[in-house]
Amino acid sequence: MIPKLLIDVVTSTGSMIVVSNRLPFVLKRNEEGKLERTASAGGLVTAVAPVVINTNGLWVGWPGIHLEDPNEPIPESRPDDITPTAGLKSEKVVTVQVDPVKFDDYYNGCCNATFWPLFHSMPDRAIFRGDKYKAYTEVNKEFADRTFEALKRLVKSGEAENEPPLIWIHDYHLMLAANWIRQTAEEEEVPCKLGFFLHIPFPPWDIFRLFPWADEILQGMLGCDMVGFHITDYCLNFVDCCQRSLGCRVDRKNLLVEHGGRTVRVRPLPIGIPFDRFVELAHTAPKLLSTNQKIILGVDRLDYTKGLVNRLKSFETLLEKHPEHKEKVSLLQIAVPSRTDVKEYQELKEEIDQLVGRINGRFTTPNWSPIRYIFGCVSQDELAAFYREAYVGLVTPLRDGMNLVAKEFVACQINTPPGVLIVSPFAGAGETMHEALICNPYEIDSAAEVIHRALTMPEDERILRMNYLRRREKLNDVNYWTKSFLSAMGSLSAQEDHDEVGAITMPQVTLDDFDEYLSKYIGNTHKLALLLDYDGTLAPIAPHPDLAIIPQETKNVLQRLSNLPDCYIAIVSGRNVHNVKEMVGIEGITYAGSHGLEILHPDGSKFVHPMPTEFKGKVEDLLKNLQEKVCKDGGWVENKGALLTFHFREVPVNIRNDLAAKAKKLIEEAGFKAGKAHCAIEARPPVQWNKGRASIYILRTAFGVDWSERIRIIYCGDDVTDEDAMQALKGMAATFRVTSSSITKTSAERRLPSTDSVLTLLKWVERHLSRRKPSLDPTSYRRNSKQLQGGVQMEMSFPAVPVETK
Amino acid sequence: MIPKLLIDVVTSTGSMIVVSNRLPFVLKRNEEGKLERTASAGGLVTAVAPVVINTNGLWVGWPGIHLEDPNEPIPESRPDDITPTAGLKSEKVVTVQVDPVKFDDYYNGCCNATFWPLFHSMPDRAIFRGDKYKAYTEVNKEFADRTFEALKRLVKSGEAENEPPLIWIHDYHLMLAANWIRQTAEEEEVPCKLGFFLHIPFPPWDIFRLFPWADEILQGMLGCDMVGFHITDYCLNFVDCCQRSLGCRVDRKNLLVEHGGRTVRVRPLPIGIPFDRFVELAHTAPKLLSTNQKIILGVDRLDYTKGLVNRLKSFETLLEKHPEHKEKVSLLQIAVPSRTDVKEYQELKEEIDQLVGRINGRFTTPNWSPIRYIFGCVSQDELAAFYREAYVGLVTPLRDGMNLVAKEFVACQINTPPGVLIVSPFAGAGETMHEALICNPYEIDSAAEVIHRALTMPEDERILRMNYLRRREKLNDVNYWTKSFLSAMGSLSAQEDHDEVGAITMPQVTLDDFDEYLSKYIGNTHKLALLLDYDGTLAPIAPHPDLAIIPQETKNVLQRLSNLPDCYIAIVSGRNVHNVKEMVGIEGITYAGSHGLEILHPDGSKFVHPMPTEFKGKVEDLLKNLQEKVCKDGGWVENKGALLTFHFREVPVNIRNDLAAKAKKLIEEAGFKAGKAHCAIEARPPVQWNKGRASIYILRTAFGVDWSERIRIIYCGDDVTDEDAMQALKGMAATFRVTSSSITKTSAERRLPSTDSVLTLLKWVERHLSRRKPSLDPTSYRRNSKQLQGGVQMEMSFPAVPVETK
Repeated sequence: MIPKLLIDVVTSTGSMIVVSNRLPFVLKRNEEGKLERTASAGGLVTAVAPVVINTNGLWVGWPGIHLEDPNEPIPESRPDDITPTAGLKSEKVVTVQVDPVKFDDYYNGCCNATFWPLFHSMPDRAIFRGDKYKAYTEVNKEFADRTFEALKRLVKSGEAENEPPLIWIHDYHLMLAANWIRQTAEEEEVPCKLGFFLHIPFPPWDIFRLFPWADEILQGMLGCDMVGFHITDYCLNFVDCCQRSLGCRVDRKNLLVEHGGRTVRVRPLPIGIPFDRFVELAHTAPKLLSTNQKIILGVDRLDYTKGLVNRLKSFETLLEKHPEHKEKVSLLQIAVPSRTDVKEYQELKEEIDQLVGRINGRFTTPNWSPIRYIFGCVSQDELAAFYREAYVGLVTPLRDGMNLVAKEFVACQINTPPGVLIVSPFAGAGETMHEALICNPYEIDSAAEVIHRALTMPEDERILRMNYLRRREKLNDVNYWTKSFLSAMGSLSAQEDHDEVGAITMPQVTLDDFDEYLSKYIGNTHKLALLLDYDGTLAPIAPHPDLAIIPQETKNVLQRLSNLPDCYIAIVSGRNVHNVKEMVGIEGITYAGSHGLEILHPDGSKFVHPMPTEFKGKVEDLLKNLQEKVCKDGGWVENKGALLTFHFREVPVNIRNDLAAKAKKLIEEAGFKAGKAHCAIEARPPVQWNKGRASIYILRTAFGVDWSERIRIIYCGDDVTDEDAMQALKGMAATFRVTSSSITKTSAERRLPSTDSVLTLLKWVERHLSRRKPSLDPTSYRRNSKQLQGGVQMEMSFPAVPVETK
Repeated sequence: MIPKLLIDVVTSTGSMIVVSNRLPFVLKRNEEGKLERTASAGGLVTAVAPVVINTNGLWVGWPGIHLEDPNEPIPESRPDDITPTAGLKSEKVVTVQVDPVKFDDYYNGCCNATFWPLFHSMPDRAIFRGDKYKAYTEVNKEFADRTFEALKRLVKSGEAENEPPLIWIHDYHLMLAANWIRQTAEEEEVPCKLGFFLHIPFPPWDIFRLFPWADEILQGMLGCDMVGFHITDYCLNFVDCCQRSLGCRVDRKNLLVEHGGRTVRVRPLPIGIPFDRFVELAHTAPKLLSTNQKIILGVDRLDYTKGLVNRLKSFETLLEKHPEHKEKVSLLQIAVPSRTDVKEYQELKEEIDQLVGRINGRFTTPNWSPIRYIFGCVSQDELAAFYREAYVGLVTPLRDGMNLVAKEFVACQINTPPGVLIVSPFAGAGETMHEALICNPYEIDSAAEVIHRALTMPEDERILRMNYLRRREKLNDVNYWTKSFLSAMGSLSAQEDHDEVGAITMPQVTLDDFDEYLSKYIGNTHKLALLLDYDGTLAPIAPHPDLAIIPQETKNVLQRLSNLPDCYIAIVSGRNVHNVKEMVGIEGITYAGSHGLEILHPDGSKFVHPMPTEFKGKVEDLLKNLQEKVCKDGGWVENKGALLTFHFREVPVNIRNDLAAKAKKLIEEAGFKAGKAHCAIEARPPVQWNKGRASIYILRTAFGVDWSERIRIIYCGDDVTDEDAMQALKGMAATFRVTSSSITKTSAERRLPSTDSVLTLLKWVERHLSRRKPSLDPTSYRRNSKQLQGGVQMEMSFPAVPVETK
């Protein structure tokens, strides 16, 4: 049962680990209370299970039953099982067990109640609840943990293929799992590749952005090396969301997204069906329909996305507008029960029941009933017979990721002349099955006309269209899809990999990128204020703060920028202000240390955030307390006004930790925040002051009250403390967050992958400003900054009088 | 009361005719049964009415009352009326009266039940009904007719300004009106300019395309010279829809759409408020709130787009998570009644009533009730007082075109220190009021945190943010908006028109356009089949068919193309096949005449569609009948097999018409279709044959059964009969409709504005094919086309044996 096509392919790939909400079989208890497998016959399982088995892979998923004992052994397949999963030994199956209440919150509360309607662009039906989403994240974490454990066992066992294992995560249930797997795998140095496929549509930005945790979902998916969707439209929607919601650099043409320092490929991978199996079924299935009427066939899960109400109304209109079809056609509608415990679905069923009754009541004659409506499941055999014998296949969802019924219908159209397929443009199938008749399900009258056209289509046109449809689906069957996935993962050898064209990694950040981001904003007339963090922004992060040295090239550009009349520079750091000045080593620019509590102006004057009145007494007490209790053995306290710093560099190593812990305790008991610094502990009053407020103070000091109109601002940082500034400057500055991490919540407009790209940004600024004509304004802000400070102080609502220390 | 800013501006513009669903005042009957005006105080009216009055313009709209006598005179304004519309004399008011039932279908059935939810991206709430849309089109037609009549009167009266009148159509109620006005104005040569502004959001393509008549709406709006939206996002959505739904050429950077041979400008014009009036109101309004609590203020029409339920829940969460605010804050929610007769709105009100009750029940203390909920209207004075005294303005719609409450709130924040504005990112205001706090209303917990942040925001940050917000709104007030509209219409003199930058007309269709459309599809390996209509496609339409001569340059390119080995050409025309061959005059290509009933192959063989069996006898009868009754005085019948053509060129002029009419009658009585030709009438059997089926026949004859895999196809036509081919080839060919008409329903993928652009297309094809290496295939299709024909015939399901006439 292993598809031949794939046998060759998988030899060059690693072991495949499939992660899906459900396992490829369901566990049930038999009468004796023993667990038994019931295999799934879905096309996906048929295509993917052999690859898992053949590559010594694994399948991770929920078995369809909550076990009291999570370690209860999984049974092997039954001897009579001839499905593709029969060969999946229990040791290759990883079951995920979650508390039933949490699982219900995850599955029904979030997957079905939020993502299903939202991703189908029906936001009104979506429920956004933090608690349900929390369950979703926890269950995803559980899946990720179980997957990683299994991955590690597999790699250590030596049973895996030589290539790194290939983890394939499926669908909207598991959009967050990839990142956790990646992180742990990187930490523990277990090699693997990660791929994701979404089986439903991906909505446009205007819809997706409604989801409050949209950025987490995107970053979860971007944890993979490749993210697949059915059609290019969904890919473009996703890429658009990454750019607009996360501020990622993207390449729309090659469908690439840069995130966390990696390039993620986005690929359209339209799913297919096991075409040959359906052909075989169509050949062997007994004749089921004995009727003289032309059968119009609809097969759908009873779901609001399927457009059943519209379809029934269209059929009614057909009979009304084209009475010649009366007693000549019947609509056979199979509605497969779904989520019958949900009120919304019950109401939908009632509506359909009633509608069918009304239409039948209106048109039925003694020997003919227009609609045959089966609410229930039908076997694959029956289905194939219906497909084969139908004159028209009516696939008219309001929105649908792909819709496999359309494909199964054409596979089973083995008779000549064949029938006609009608597809909605809002299904993936409508975008890819070009020769089908296209029908907007919302337009009842015109939908009726399309059905009429199908019923009266000349035979040669029917043959022509069906031939093309069948040829395409035969070629692009579900095995082809699996192969395309492997190809997109880069898991095929080069000669087989003919599908993958174009660039697959984003080029380095270039000056052109900033042209696109900044040219319009910066313009040619405004002065520019550059606010930059130091560690991780200008200087690469190092194991020890003293080793985080600014690269010479960066320093040179900064130095030249500091000499440009239109450029103002401030370094905003968590370090001690003198230390950061020393590290950067450029004169004539502003330095803010201790997250802005101390600011060193270019003219040498210094601002120190004053102690709040209510802390005035407390700080003296604390100072005294520290001096008494920990200022011994070389420890000493520096009084900075707003800050007290306890230094213990001189303290003998063996008693350092004790003394530091003691100092920390004293600081916290006094109601201060204890902040770690290099061989020191800082005592900070709990003032409302951070890099955001410091940035605003710096800008007002330098440019006066109307700074926002006079200047353009770029803020660039890599730390969570920089988020305060990005938030405070939101809408007033271009903000960049330097991050190579997979999950980052940021208020910044754009992300940059490294300190290298900050250097590129600085170079862009230099080039941009150098092209300007020299400023004609004789009073540069640098000369009158002192003067402006006074004016600003008056407007500030806190007593922020600069303390002159010079 | 005329804004000073505008007095200068309007001198260079034409008379302004505003067309809006409602007039700027409401008519009501007083106790004596006489009509009286009640003026509107809206910001838009305030800004626009003076321009209308000052330019001797008009206002077209519904007066808010259905009059039994549509000619009942409109009263002048009351003497005590001091609103801006007081100066609008009744002769300058054009009332539109529509049958009340139809008006209800238009207003409630379509505008409110379809466009309102759809344009707010809530498709589930939208109802799509053909009958309601029909009423919409009819009412739009009525508005258009009344507007045109008024325009014509105005121009003829000589009272208008010298410049052409400027017709400004407002909002989603009147999206179809522009085209009719334009058409009639062009026909009757009445000069005017047309502009449109949409006051609600414009949705993304994925949502807009659901509307079954999406293409009509787009073309209706494109009837204007300029289409305005609040923000760039909506503009881009609209441009995207024009490209993807209509196949228009667009310029995303300069926001231009080419349609019907014209360039339509698309512009973001964020609406403002009468800022100074609100400041004045805030200064004069008496103190209303006597409370020690900080007031969080919400003011909304009670509508499902406003997110009131989410807002109340966020406030509840605030009190739960931050109990320090208990007894310290109150939420004052004004809910203005709206559409109270609609069930959906009644249910929403019930939900809100209940929620307010529950939350108050949960938190109320003897001296404090957390929510003060006013369901009713408040005066402008009261509103200004609320705005002024509120600590937080909470504007959190789920979707909103702009939201003026946000702007009115900041205008009224005259106290120091000011309050804080919170805006939803899903409102236009959220995109443009950068310094407001942004809050996703769907995320209840985090919305509560944003409110908390607003309540605890440091004073300096509050001042800073509010200063910027106020400055921007003062500058960009509603008068500025009106001026921006005039500027976007090109109605300002050049020096004032500093806002308009970039190109404002689309460049002519260039080779590059086709690079974008076709390069990928045509590729470098497949042969190309060019199927071209003649009249209106290759040759410009002429008053007489004989004068529709192919331009020499087009002929030359075609001639050269016909010699390229990779290019196959067929001309598919409604003309007689010999006539079209003569008109084109190129040997070695295929000609299809009579919409494909006759086909002349390059080798000289001819196909004539055979007569259907059931018409075999009838055609003989008809032939005999025609010969007996009209073949006299020079009239004669040509028997073409599928066609009979009655020629009357030789018939004396004075009896021609009679004889032709007689022949037509005989043809139709025999069950044939009578088609007009040059000095002839064609009798065509009602066969299912058209340019579509002929195209498929031509391609199969030339390329064999697997043509679709072997070739690429371009079809290009300008006629409705070409639509059959575009539909039949859908998904299998690149299709172009040549149209300079404002409303065209087409199945073509792309539109071209003229025969000139077809020439460019041909040139592109020549360049593209010439760059290829010479084909190595020794058996060109041209040499074995006869051979292939045989194979094809076998597969054709109708007896289409070529009739050799040579």
